[in-house]
Amino acid sequence: MAEVVHMIDSEVFLAFSTYATIVILKMMLMSIMTSYYRLTKQVFANIEDTTLVKTTEDRKKLVRSDADVERVRRCHQNDLENIVPFVVIGLLYSLTGPDLSSALLHFRVFVGSRFIHTVTYVMALPQPSRGLSFGVGLCATVSMAYRVLTTSLFL
Amino acid sequence: MAEVVHMIDSEVFLAFSTYATIVILKMMLMSIMTSYYRLTKQVFANIEDTTLVKTTEDRKKLVRSDADVERVRRCHQNDLENIVPFVVIGLLYSLTGPDLSSALLHFRVFVGSRFIHTVTYVMALPQPSRGLSFGVGLCATVSMAYRVLTTSLFL
Amino acid sequence: MAEVVHMIDSEVFLAFSTYATIVILKMMLMSIMTSYYRLTKQVFANIEDTTLVKTTEDRKKLVRSDADVERVRRCHQNDLENIVPFVVIGLLYSLTGPDLSSALLHFRVFVGSRFIHTVTYVMALPQPSRGLSFGVGLCATVSMAYRVLTTSLFL
Repeated sequence: MAEVVHMIDSEVFLAFSTYATIVILKMMLMSIMTSYYRLTKQVFANIEDTTLVKTTEDRKKLVRSDADVERVRRCHQNDLENIVPFVVIGLLYSLTGPDLSSALLHFRVFVGSRFIHTVTYVMALPQPSRGLSFGVGLCATVSMAYRVLTTSLFL
Repeated sequence: MAEVVHMIDSEVFLAFSTYATIVILKMMLMSIMTSYYRLTKQVFANIEDTTLVKTTEDRKKLVRSDADVERVRRCHQNDLENIVPFVVIGLLYSLTGPDLSSALLHFRVFVGSRFIHTVTYVMALPQPSRGLSFGVGLCATVSMAYRVLTTSLFL
Repeated sequence: MAEVVHMIDSEVFLAFSTYATIVILKMMLMSIMTSYYRLTKQVFANIEDTTLVKTTEDRKKLVRSDADVERVRRCHQNDLENIVPFVVIGLLYSLTGPDLSSALLHFRVFVGSRFIHTVTYVMALPQPSRGLSFGVGLCATVSMAYRVLTTSLFL
């Protein structure tokens, strides 16, 4: 990480910037998808959200849990747990001056694996499709972390 | 993002630094608020946290769920799901060299919307107050993401 | 933050890079630990994950909740809620040009406190061990946030 100033101007950093933005936007879509499921299936977490129905009796019944909504929320949570490490380690990795081709491979594999993960999770596709897409994304992040630690260890 | 080295020294980056720190501190306050509710309402998630009450019988009863605690936790979770994207995309956005006034507008609108969101969520104010504050924050982040992708797309 | 360009090349930034990567890898381990508990205890969140058992009747019974799995998930959630603020504020703090010794102290205290927190949480050690480790980590992050705001306030 000796000449990091030059690295931050590089194509690697531009690529990181692009892929990080795309995968974060994908994660934000999960919020919209949760709201969409909540509204169409009339399943709410808060009593004040049930304003479409008038009587108080009916409104209380809409504060409930639903299998599909919970599935989308677990998928969102898994995104948080995996995309946050990618963004942090990917940023530090970009500053270690890797080859552009090697960096693009990591970014593309990770972002691709998360899109596949979301499809397999939301559509409840048979395992091991979801497990594999989760594992591939994890390996991409760990591989970048390995480079960060070997290039710039300072304890 | 061609002259990013100069950008990182800029007032835009100082402004990002300030607003990101403020909104992250706000998010950390939710942890404190959860602890406060758990202690005052005697609602715990773990058996080892119930050490204020002596007998084992009584202690088990304190491991339960409570509407107010769950509300604060949902608010905290919503912060995580929205503030993390803001911080990541806001950092990349600051490096694209936007106008100071335009950057300040984005940062102020987002941070303001999250404070309003927390108040409306914790106090259970009538909708659409919470929905609107959520949406405004989302738009600020998406608008910054749009600039990042149009300025520095590198797939 | 006037000469941030020189700071990003510094030993402080190398140290931040190292400790941030270590603590993020630790957080990712929680995902693996959750999967391990789910598989060994046969407790699943999704019906498609129960493919080890053949009959549909048996499979439905495996979609359930378990105290140990929930404990690991709460620990993971607490990591997300605390490590994300550390990474964001730690990055901005590194760019304010602090003394190396002072920066190392902050990073080591935080990362150490999170490892202790995980051990106390997963092993359900008596309080206040977990509360203290949580509080020490929080103080390290708040102390860095204080320096960021006093060094580079730009509202």
